[in-house]
Amino acid sequence: MPNSSASTVAYDRLATTYLRLHRLQHLQSIAYWDQAAYMPAAGNDARAAALAEVATLMHRMSTDPKLRDDLDHAEQEPLDESQRANLREMRRVWRQSNALPESLVERTQLASSRCEHAWRTQRPANDWAGFASNLRDVLACAREEATLLSDQTGLSRYDAMMDRFEPGMTSAQLDRIFGDVRQWLPSLIQRVIDKQSREPLIQPQGPFPVAAQRALCEQAMRLLGFDFEAGRLDVSTHPFCGGVPEDVRMTTRFRDDEFLVSLMGTIHETGHGRYEQNRPRETLGQPVSQARSMALHESQSLSFEMQLGGHEGFAELLSPLVAQAFGEQTAFAPGNLHRLVTRVKPGLIRVDADEVTYPAHVILRYEIERPLIEGEIELDDVPALWDAKMAELLGVDTRGNYKDGPMQDVHWPVALFGYFPCYSLGAMYAAQWFAAMRRAMPDLDTRIGRGDLQPVFDWLHRHIWSQGSRYLTDDLCRRASGEVLNPAHLRAHLEARYL
Amino acid sequence: MPNSSASTVAYDRLATTYLRLHRLQHLQSIAYWDQAAYMPAAGNDARAAALAEVATLMHRMSTDPKLRDDLDHAEQEPLDESQRANLREMRRVWRQSNALPESLVERTQLASSRCEHAWRTQRPANDWAGFASNLRDVLACAREEATLLSDQTGLSRYDAMMDRFEPGMTSAQLDRIFGDVRQWLPSLIQRVIDKQSREPLIQPQGPFPVAAQRALCEQAMRLLGFDFEAGRLDVSTHPFCGGVPEDVRMTTRFRDDEFLVSLMGTIHETGHGRYEQNRPRETLGQPVSQARSMALHESQSLSFEMQLGGHEGFAELLSPLVAQAFGEQTAFAPGNLHRLVTRVKPGLIRVDADEVTYPAHVILRYEIERPLIEGEIELDDVPALWDAKMAELLGVDTRGNYKDGPMQDVHWPVALFGYFPCYSLGAMYAAQWFAAMRRAMPDLDTRIGRGDLQPVFDWLHRHIWSQGSRYLTDDLCRRASGEVLNPAHLRAHLEARYL
Repeated sequence: MPNSSASTVAYDRLATTYLRLHRLQHLQSIAYWDQAAYMPAAGNDARAAALAEVATLMHRMSTDPKLRDDLDHAEQEPLDESQRANLREMRRVWRQSNALPESLVERTQLASSRCEHAWRTQRPANDWAGFASNLRDVLACAREEATLLSDQTGLSRYDAMMDRFEPGMTSAQLDRIFGDVRQWLPSLIQRVIDKQSREPLIQPQGPFPVAAQRALCEQAMRLLGFDFEAGRLDVSTHPFCGGVPEDVRMTTRFRDDEFLVSLMGTIHETGHGRYEQNRPRETLGQPVSQARSMALHESQSLSFEMQLGGHEGFAELLSPLVAQAFGEQTAFAPGNLHRLVTRVKPGLIRVDADEVTYPAHVILRYEIERPLIEGEIELDDVPALWDAKMAELLGVDTRGNYKDGPMQDVHWPVALFGYFPCYSLGAMYAAQWFAAMRRAMPDLDTRIGRGDLQPVFDWLHRHIWSQGSRYLTDDLCRRASGEVLNPAHLRAHLEARYL
Repeated sequence: MPNSSASTVAYDRLATTYLRLHRLQHLQSIAYWDQAAYMPAAGNDARAAALAEVATLMHRMSTDPKLRDDLDHAEQEPLDESQRANLREMRRVWRQSNALPESLVERTQLASSRCEHAWRTQRPANDWAGFASNLRDVLACAREEATLLSDQTGLSRYDAMMDRFEPGMTSAQLDRIFGDVRQWLPSLIQRVIDKQSREPLIQPQGPFPVAAQRALCEQAMRLLGFDFEAGRLDVSTHPFCGGVPEDVRMTTRFRDDEFLVSLMGTIHETGHGRYEQNRPRETLGQPVSQARSMALHESQSLSFEMQLGGHEGFAELLSPLVAQAFGEQTAFAPGNLHRLVTRVKPGLIRVDADEVTYPAHVILRYEIERPLIEGEIELDDVPALWDAKMAELLGVDTRGNYKDGPMQDVHWPVALFGYFPCYSLGAMYAAQWFAAMRRAMPDLDTRIGRGDLQPVFDWLHRHIWSQGSRYLTDDLCRRASGEVLNPAHLRAHLEARYL
């Protein structure tokens, strides 16, 4: 990245710093992965201390006052388009690293680690009061952060929080987008349930040995183009996609009484993994090579899990692999497999939701966390709001069931406010990508059924993966699909697939 | 470790620095372990860059000029005995970090990485000339390093190199010790071979499935007290014991046509592992909690592999585990298993050598690398010396066979001169520990046969593991066994076991 031209000396110095940070982040990522996948219990304290040490070092590098001067000087230097985009992203990363006083960062960490730790036992005990007393401290920190970020960016408090994950997205836009979804989603869900209730469905018979499941997941990853020379699949309690672009570490988990959750989860993470494996190499380590946003990242995992994984043609490809793994069953026939994967059922738990009901879970959370951060409502208002919105959007009763209600997610305990919208924005982008692909390749669906997935990968590579953060999200989206985010594509996708 | 007394302010600042280095080393160790055990091939360049980055940071911390002042000031501070020992070890670590100019470190790294890389193909091709041309550069760097270290320490050049691994040991002592071994070893080997040639030996019949071998190795580790809550066993091409005291990462490798090499190798590494797992907790992260020396470390792995693993009573414990792993075979009877483990056969390769012939391999290397570093001989002299010494010590012919002669070890290509003696010193210390145990516990051997290994672990824990680097080696040895290193114990052990 750094070039030796004397006229870009400030820019080059910045590029060197971000490359060094990238290398330290490599060690961080591998240590996190190991912690989740292999570390024995007694290693935890030493690991936490080691990770805190490198985080401190990286924070010091990221907040070095010299960076601010270099950022200013670099603006005057003769940069090419990619360098200028990198400088924009450097400034964004710098702003985030320098936005908060260390005392607030520490208070937030303390409050959220206490809240998250207690939540692990409070949730099964359905102890809302105990949970809320800790969450109050986390919320206080988050509101303070939101106020600071709002002052710096000129955005509203919630928008400033969301901007950390989804730069450019605002609650004004979300209100429009989710307002539209609210119009058609509940009746769509009802119609899909009615239709599916008349379709036969055969349940697979277990057990499904873990070794066979693992082999099946790896086959699915190969089918989806995951590069095992530059990544692995391992097991952890909470599946994730970590590591570094040159060495992507995916995890999943297995239960021997079912296989579809692990398989679809692996397909989901493979979407994240391929985005990471294919970020632009020539700028790797620089902010401009980062994935564009969290919604864009989710658009890749959901392109794989929902657009491909739930595709009728894709079931044709999976069917023989599943039969090979567990022996022939009528349940593994392509049609039945597809019906299993696309079964819609309103439920209490977001992470278990199908693609049709999922947006309801996200809209509900957005409609609660936004006013919570803006200070328009208080924590004590949350349970009643939750009950009302679950009844309204999904027709299910959550009264008194806090553990499967507002206590179900780890996000709020760990101060992750403003993230939830990314999940559904990702689903919308994914639908938009496939609509664009179908316009360019009218025979796309036939090809998928034939096992010819390369056109999909090529399109995503060209328009998303290889672009990193070169363009702002709206610009990237317009270049990829001819328009900015348009939720009509998700609706059209759901109606086409489910009605 | 740091205490808040204002009167030990320099000492406390040093303690904080070494604790921070310890934490960064944690990430290094896990990244190295992952590189050997799990990392896919394409991750290598990024990993190397990340490891180089943290090494640079650590080097900068270790050579901060402020450390020298703090070391001097701390000498005047009111330290307790443990702090004073820590200060002595801090100074030692500091001296090593600051001994060499960066340019020499870099030249050595370049030369040795080129030599080691070429060696991987030159060795199978038996290409001594090609190898020697690279090794010449490595040797030139090593001699330069030896001269610098000699000037700083007042030791001879070779002794200064050895001091990095085995502080306090000198070639004058080694000449005496190895000179003694040279007197009795060749005839002992001959007598053992004669004796064993009259003993029946049944070879186990494979295959030995890898999953069963892995389970067997883990059982052996449990038998030997390895704490799986604070460590793991994995697989790598070159077995090692890495990680950190709180989380020890051992590796082994498996071939399905034999199992004893992996099993005994695992028992060996378990000795290293228990030393690491039981280093003093209250000073962890400080130089004084480090293992005392490389010979002391080897004395633990060899206490496990040779003293215990080759013990007649230990074969009684292994026998049912082996039979459980692979099914009953007459070869697995305790007597035969013991004869398999203790079979003596002069050979070309050090790492394949039994405990009786092993010292010959080490003496030979010492007698070549010492004059090589001192500048008394040149690389071109090595093959003839090697041939002569192999004939003299082990009666085997190595003429023209460079690949199984002076090209067999990785040590010289990577500039590791002065390390070889530690292996045999470790065997001597191990014999000395068990002699001391037998004096304190006359029924030790019966106990081992009964599976009561706790007295062994307790003795090692009290005298070696928990002591870290609190005492200098001679002092530690005297406190543990009543005398400084005495090679007569190794001779007595070998004669008692093999004649």
